[in-house]
Amino acid sequence: MSLTLRSENACFGGRMSFHAHASRETGTEMRFAVFTPSQAGPNRKVPALYYLAGLTCTEETFVIKAGAQRLAAELGLMLVACDTSPRGLNLPGDSDAWDFGVGAGFYLDATQAPWATNYRMGSYVNLELPALIEANFPAATDRRGIFGHSMGGHGALVTALRNPDRWRSVSAFAPISNPVAVPWGEKAFGNYLGTDRTSWEAYDASVLMRAKAHPCEVLVDQGLADQFLEKQLQPEALEAAAKASGQKLKLRRHEGYDHSYWFIQSFVADHLRHHAALLG
Amino acid sequence: MSLTLRSENACFGGRMSFHAHASRETGTEMRFAVFTPSQAGPNRKVPALYYLAGLTCTEETFVIKAGAQRLAAELGLMLVACDTSPRGLNLPGDSDAWDFGVGAGFYLDATQAPWATNYRMGSYVNLELPALIEANFPAATDRRGIFGHSMGGHGALVTALRNPDRWRSVSAFAPISNPVAVPWGEKAFGNYLGTDRTSWEAYDASVLMRAKAHPCEVLVDQGLADQFLEKQLQPEALEAAAKASGQKLKLRRHEGYDHSYWFIQSFVADHLRHHAALLG
Repeated sequence: MSLTLRSENACFGGRMSFHAHASRETGTEMRFAVFTPSQAGPNRKVPALYYLAGLTCTEETFVIKAGAQRLAAELGLMLVACDTSPRGLNLPGDSDAWDFGVGAGFYLDATQAPWATNYRMGSYVNLELPALIEANFPAATDRRGIFGHSMGGHGALVTALRNPDRWRSVSAFAPISNPVAVPWGEKAFGNYLGTDRTSWEAYDASVLMRAKAHPCEVLVDQGLADQFLEKQLQPEALEAAAKASGQKLKLRRHEGYDHSYWFIQSFVADHLRHHAALLG
Repeated sequence: MSLTLRSENACFGGRMSFHAHASRETGTEMRFAVFTPSQAGPNRKVPALYYLAGLTCTEETFVIKAGAQRLAAELGLMLVACDTSPRGLNLPGDSDAWDFGVGAGFYLDATQAPWATNYRMGSYVNLELPALIEANFPAATDRRGIFGHSMGGHGALVTALRNPDRWRSVSAFAPISNPVAVPWGEKAFGNYLGTDRTSWEAYDASVLMRAKAHPCEVLVDQGLADQFLEKQLQPEALEAAAKASGQKLKLRRHEGYDHSYWFIQSFVADHLRHHAALLG
């Protein structure tokens, strides 16, 4: 798993760097971004917080638009941001829509042709990327957090709820909370996972949370002027699931905020503090 | 001077908005971005801090990449970011290079054909834009600050030094400090202002500062790993000018930082505090 350094820059006393590697899971080159705070060093590993972006985004979106490095530098948190799907495959139909295929991997392992071979973002995020990070950066192996936005909020919740032993802290901005029941999820899961809708439930945050709570409190922020709120996001499903399983859930609704990174940057500090408190 | 609202989003309790208008100075549509903090209101005007971006940038660059809104919200500062030149004119040669013409207006009023009619970014920034802002936003008319990066650092210094009555505070990131003596300046000034090099001095921060100090301390940050430092930026010229005129200048040199927005975001909070202290 050799890494290519694409760029690196000093940032808040630490280092912002962009990398590429040949991914075993996706069979493609995958790119990611890392903010390494100054507290980290060869003999001082720091907690790592992974960010999963939403539809159409790349590994650049969050690190450029969210303004998270300042507080990460202060808290001594490493930030890791990956891409939203494999790229460059030219599979039939992979670029016909912005909500499916390229830029829309939905952080699951596809089971259906032609997606099953490469669209393995579930295992990429849960296993391959952390292994790569922990082998090449001063990241602690026992203090991982994960968060994300929209499709990436879904990905963060699902990844942590499926693997609570691997992910100590989790939060989300405007997640797709109940994808089996909304158009984005129906389209993606139908194509990636097939027509058997019961197979979809393994990647639905509300279904998973209803079955078993994550050990730590989950933080979710949602704007009330979000254009996707009613049709695609449905935080009330997550709220009901948390109630059923006893999941500690802090779901905050914010008047006037929409689905953009202007919303994310407004509340990102609270998420970093949430993770830092749980990751120690 | 009617304004078109292009977008607006809630951000840090305030409002991030993008606008267009027909500019009298440039004869083109000009675009700008405004962050209005929550402290501002119809009966509560706040200080406005204008940002001038560098070569190739637009009104979007700073507000997306610098992470300045968080502290502006806290300090109650309005942020205004404009474009770097007129666009859409298709003047001969205006798009042949990234360091001249479109995206490279150098914040001066051109005197030479074919530039003189439209390339009037000097008056646009000093007069037209503040008048437009103060007529349409809750911005105080007696508390303006200005800062910028690279070409925009040059623009901020020159605008404030030429018009100290209009600009109470000024700072810069990696400014082109002595443009009459470096390739970027020679190319731009030669084309915009003509072959008489004495006419260039009216737009050179070091020449201006040497002749007359700005009433307030000037803050300048410079990365020592900046790829343009020696050939184009020359902060030592500014330092010598400050010494000659008694200008209070806080010039900070930062080991390891380059010319990017990773550098800017690392120190932008100090600039906002510098301006807030002077703007009251």
